[in-house]
Order: sequence, then C-alpha cells, then structure tokens
Amino acid sequence: MDRGRRAYTDIMTAPAPDDTSPATQHLLDFVFAEVWQRPGLTRRERRFVTLPCVAAADAEAPMRDHVYAALNSGDLSIDEMREAVLHFAVYAGWPKASRFNMVVDEQWDRIHRERGLPVPPPAPLLPLSTPSDPEARLSVGEQSFKDVNCLPFAPQRDNPFQGAGILNFVFGEMWLRPNLGMKERRLITVACVAFQDSPYPILSHVYAALKSRDISFEEMDELALQFAAHYGWPKGSHLNHVIGEQKERVRAEWAAEGAPVS
Amino acid sequence: MDRGRRAYTDIMTAPAPDDTSPATQHLLDFVFAEVWQRPGLTRRERRFVTLPCVAAADAEAPMRDHVYAALNSGDLSIDEMREAVLHFAVYAGWPKASRFNMVVDEQWDRIHRERGLPVPPPAPLLPLSTPSDPEARLSVGEQSFKDVNCLPFAPQRDNPFQGAGILNFVFGEMWLRPNLGMKERRLITVACVAFQDSPYPILSHVYAALKSRDISFEEMDELALQFAAHYGWPKGSHLNHVIGEQKERVRAEWAAEGAPVS
Amino acid sequence: MDRGRRAYTDIMTAPAPDDTSPATQHLLDFVFAEVWQRPGLTRRERRFVTLPCVAAADAEAPMRDHVYAALNSGDLSIDEMREAVLHFAVYAGWPKASRFNMVVDEQWDRIHRERGLPVPPPAPLLPLSTPSDPEARLSVGEQSFKDVNCLPFAPQRDNPFQGAGILNFVFGEMWLRPNLGMKERRLITVACVAFQDSPYPILSHVYAALKSRDISFEEMDELALQFAAHYGWPKGSHLNHVIGEQKERVRAEWAAEGAPVS
Repeated sequence: MDRGRRAYTDIMTAPAPDDTSPATQHLLDFVFAEVWQRPGLTRRERRFVTLPCVAAADAEAPMRDHVYAALNSGDLSIDEMREAVLHFAVYAGWPKASRFNMVVDEQWDRIHRERGLPVPPPAPLLPLSTPSDPEARLSVGEQSFKDVNCLPFAPQRDNPFQGAGILNFVFGEMWLRPNLGMKERRLITVACVAFQDSPYPILSHVYAALKSRDISFEEMDELALQFAAHYGWPKGSHLNHVIGEQKERVRAEWAAEGAPVS
Repeated sequence: MDRGRRAYTDIMTAPAPDDTSPATQHLLDFVFAEVWQRPGLTRRERRFVTLPCVAAADAEAPMRDHVYAALNSGDLSIDEMREAVLHFAVYAGWPKASRFNMVVDEQWDRIHRERGLPVPPPAPLLPLSTPSDPEARLSVGEQSFKDVNCLPFAPQRDNPFQGAGILNFVFGEMWLRPNLGMKERRLITVACVAFQDSPYPILSHVYAALKSRDISFEEMDELALQFAAHYGWPKGSHLNHVIGEQKERVRAEWAAEGAPVS
Repeated sequence: MDRGRRAYTDIMTAPAPDDTSPATQHLLDFVFAEVWQRPGLTRRERRFVTLPCVAAADAEAPMRDHVYAALNSGDLSIDEMREAVLHFAVYAGWPKASRFNMVVDEQWDRIHRERGLPVPPPAPLLPLSTPSDPEARLSVGEQSFKDVNCLPFAPQRDNPFQGAGILNFVFGEMWLRPNLGMKERRLITVACVAFQDSPYPILSHVYAALKSRDISFEEMDELALQFAAHYGWPKGSHLNHVIGEQKERVRAEWAAEGAPVS
C-alpha cells in the first residue's frame, strides 16, 4: 500500500488520495505501483499514452492531474504538450481537445503561480513549415500519407474527407509540424485509435507504428497494457489482439523483404 | 406493431427486421413509429442528427443502414453526404470518420448496383473557395470563428490547437466549404458535441445555433429528443439541460438587444 | 404522463422533473413508465446495467441521480456500490471510474445528511481474499479466467497485457473479490463491453454470461433493452445482434453436451 502511495506521489508530483475505496486502492496498488513502474516504455512515453486516455474520458480531475504532472515533472515541455493537444484534436475530435487545451492553460498557469514565476509568452504560430499553395499542400500531404502509413499509395483527392481533410490538413500540415517526434505522435495516435476503435484505423496505425520501427514490438506490448489500465480492458483487449495480428504481418513482410526481424 | 414496421420501411427504405426481441420491438414502436414522425424537424433534418450518432457508435449495421437510407431516399445528395463526413471528422475524430467515409462509398456503390446505373465521378476538390496564404487563412478563420460562434472575439493564434487547428483549418476552411448550409452544419455539430459532451463546446455550440437563429427553440427541442433516442438518455438529458440554460441566456440577450424573442 | 412521473419518483426516490421538453416527456413515458417496469430483470438488476451507462456517459446529473437512487432506495448497499465502481474501472477505464467514485462518496454523504445520521466508516480493504505470491496469483488468475469466460484455456502470461494485466489483476484478484455476485458482475460487464463495443470482448462476455447460466436468455434480452434505452440504439442494436448469435452458439453447445436447453 505504501508502495502505491509513493508511486503515485512520484508520478503525479502530488500527494496520493486518502480515500480507502476499493477503486482508489487498486488504482494505487495496481496502476501506479505496478503498470507505471514497468520497463519497455519510459515514464515520459507512458504519459503520451495516458494523456489521450484521460482527455478522451472527459474526466475533469484525472485530466487536470495528469496534465499538471506531465508539465510539473518536466517530462513534457509546454510546446510538446500544446502540440499533443492538436494531434489529439485530430484523432479524438475538437470538442474533447478544446477542454484538454483549456486544462493545459490552467495547469501551466498554476505551475507558474506555485513557483512564483511569470508565464512565458507562447511560441509564434507563423511561419508554417508546410507549403501554402493548395496543389503543393496536397502533394506534400500525399507523400506524408504514404510515409506515415507505410503505404505505397495515397487516397484520391476528390472526396472532401480525403482531400480537404486527410491530405490537405492531417498529413499535409499536422503530422509535419515541429515539437513532437514521430515516436510521440505514434504513441498518441495508437492510444486514440484504440479508444475510438473503428475497425480500419486501429489496424493501419498499429501496423505503421511497427513497420516504420518507430515503436518496437516490446514497446507496443507495453503501450497496450498502459492503455488498458487507463481506458479499460475491453478496448485494451481488442488493441492487444490487433497488435498480435499486425506483428505477424510485419514479421512476414520483413522476412519477404530480407529486412532484419526485430 | 404494424405502425412501427411501416415507419421503419418508410424511413429506412428497406424491410423492417423480423426479430421479436424486446429491444427491436421497442426500436420500431418508439423510435421509428413515434420519434421520427414528430413535427419540428423534417425527416431530412433528423438524418443530420442520426448519422453522427450511428457513426460515433461504430455500430456497423446501423451505420450502413442509415447511410443507405439517407442516400437511397434522396433526402441527402452524395455531395452533401460526403461533406457531412468531413464535418463529422472534425467534431468526432478522423478514425471514426474514416469508417463512415468507407461506408458512404460502399452504400453509394450498392445503390447504383441495385439501380443498374454507373457510379458518377466525384466532384473535384480544387479549386478551394478559401484563401491559401497562411495570414489570409487565419484572418478568414478569425472572422468565421466569430460568425459561427456568435462571439465578438477569436482565440489567439499562437497556440497549435487554436492557431494551426481551429483558425487555420476548422473555421478558416472547413466551415466555409460548399455543399452544406449552416443549418445542416449546426445539426451535425450539436449532435457531435452532445456525444462528446466536453463541458464547454456543448454550451457554445447550442448557444450559437440558437443565437444565430439557424435553429429555432422548437427545432432544438426536437434535436434533443432525436439525439437521446439514438445516443441514449444520459447524454440526451445532459443536452436537454444545456438547451434549457442556453435558451434563457439567448432570450435575455435578445431582450437586452431589443431583438424579437422567438 | 402521470404514470411516467410516478414511475420516475418510485425508481429515482426523488420528484420527477417539471420540464415539458419532448426529450424529458419521452424519458418519463418511455424509459421510466415502460422499460423499467418490465418483467425479466428486477429493479435492482436494472440498476447494475444503468449505472455503467450513466457513468460511461460522463453525464453529471444522471450519474448523480442514479447513484443516489440506487443507494437511497436500499437496492444496493454501499459496499456493493463501491465494488461496482472497481468493476466498472476495469471495464471502462480509471478516468471515468474516478469520477464515478467521487459521485458515490458525495451521494452517500448527502443521504446521511438528509437522514441526520453520521457516515459509517468504510469496510477495510485488507486482508485480501486472493493470494499475494505472484506465481500463486497467476495460477488463481488462470483458473478464474477459464471459469469466468467458460473457456478451456487461459492466455499466455508472457505478454504485459495478458500476464501483468488480465491474469494477475483482472482475473487473479478483481473478479474474485467479495461484495458482488457473479450475476451482478455479469450485468456490469456486459453493459461495459456493449458501450466499448470492441469486437471480441462483446462476443466473449455475452457468450460466457449465457453459457454459465448466470444470466438466462430472457434476462439477456431485457439487459439489451435496458442498455439500449440508456446508451442508445446503435450500440443497443449491435448488442442485440450479438446476443442473437451467441444464443445460437450456446444452444448448439448445450445440445452437443446433452445439457438442458433453457
């Protein structure tokens, strides 16, 4: 029990709850004292899985506490956190992201208030690092779609969702922005497709994260446990099943390509 | 019971299920024979509330059946449906929209197969009707944000979620696209913020839909019922509560402005 | 209409809302006056389906009202309610459960305040009824996994999700705790897998609930209706479809085993 309370304090940078309910006791003893302590993913990487889970759940107190902890511990910079909100917006919808964004501002202010420091000005938006011309954005988006998804083709443009949305914005702009690396974007994306759990995106993003070697097989297994512990076992179990299938697929492709099978 | 089956056939353009389970019987007798028949929103308008509900739920068969019915009845054109998928993607996340988009293609093919007709080519994406220059897009986005949200200010740009996301894409491009009117976009948006149910967006979009008079008070009440019947009473009750509060707010503002209080 | 208001008061142990909106009127007349009154599941059993639905929906007022009603009516003891929160945490994720847990404490305090009574101390967590030694926990977890899922095998341990999560915690500890019987745990679990609606868990838990005879075919049909009325028809229709398939499977297995086909 003490182990759970110490683990909570360490991860959340705040005192553990006093509450003795079965739910809280198990949260401390299992999620904090066991899951978060495991090797395979760093504490910083586990935050990129956990933040989408709490933001998706619309649970005010856990969202606030995890945003605070990620920033207060120094595990994420404010620019990384703000970029994570944008990435989350795309994969979980703007309404939930809008609340997440407000919580980030509130907790950033709180941290500076607690430290007696002024809040620094935000990084300027412009200039964008991606092209502005529509034709150029679509071309960049098509290449980025292929790279991120590890696919030899891009969807056709003449469909509003695919053209105006996916190619023009999601891959032509969002995935190419600075402040988050591919590994971090993968962790956020896989967590989001796992709670959204639409059939195709969960396959395609687990596949691409493994195929690109941005996330190793062992890291992906840990991602599934971190996710299940925070978003529930049914969706966790489905993610784990998809991971098993996509590992087989990637292993077979690597073997056929003569690539090293990690 | 016959009333339920006839209503189902009429709305879904397909035979009613034969299944005698309590769940299906209540679906026919309550949702189809009562809710869909009410005045206040047309059948076409009810589809813009129902489609986001079934797409959000990831329930394969209901999504397929409602997409088919909306297109096969002629209530929505294919261009309107495809634009609805993009609008939904923004408010419910791309993974769910990705499946919705595939289902639209499948059902559009099926309708043409059933009719022995070739599938017409899609409308071309380019040229876009919104500016390409980043500064111009942000300016357009700021004005559109104010117009759509009925607010005198726009969020600051130097935040990835607000700048690169909200101003640059959601309001600088997406809300301004052709093929859906403001009323249709409002119906989709309110349904999406209602199932996402993050605290602030649900207030702001219900408020703006009423304040803009794009949706009347009576239409909004019907929207809440149509939503509750398809996405469940807990979120429906919450939406209904928010509607009550926002009606008061809008009535008070109209009174203060000397505007007619509808 | 009076019937709906009386039904609400009886179930919720509080006055019905005065609101005359179409959504509220249909909630009273359909959900309270019809669904909750049906035979097949008791009022207490319907609460184990409804509580996960309102907790998942993150809809503050319905969650508060249903927690209050379940405790205030005496249908659930506080120990059962707290155990239900833990079970829900595992199947719907800790963030949502964390809010549910707070609401339970708030409403338990409110009930005692209204009655002028002191809040009794909570039941002590320790000693646990399950073994602490890791090897013993995994063995117990493997047996419990087989028993609960009605399967002849358990998943392999050497996978973080399956070993550290499923065997060690979910089946090695959680399902074996006191204060909820198997029928109650089944009702909660099926409601949770139905709203999470990942493909495999919904099949496996509906199957196991029927195969174990913890829930009869007729009770399962009522569960689907209670669920659909509270969580929406798209997911309710999907659950109903899965139930139909799993009944066939269980009937065929019982016939092959020479077991009575209920």
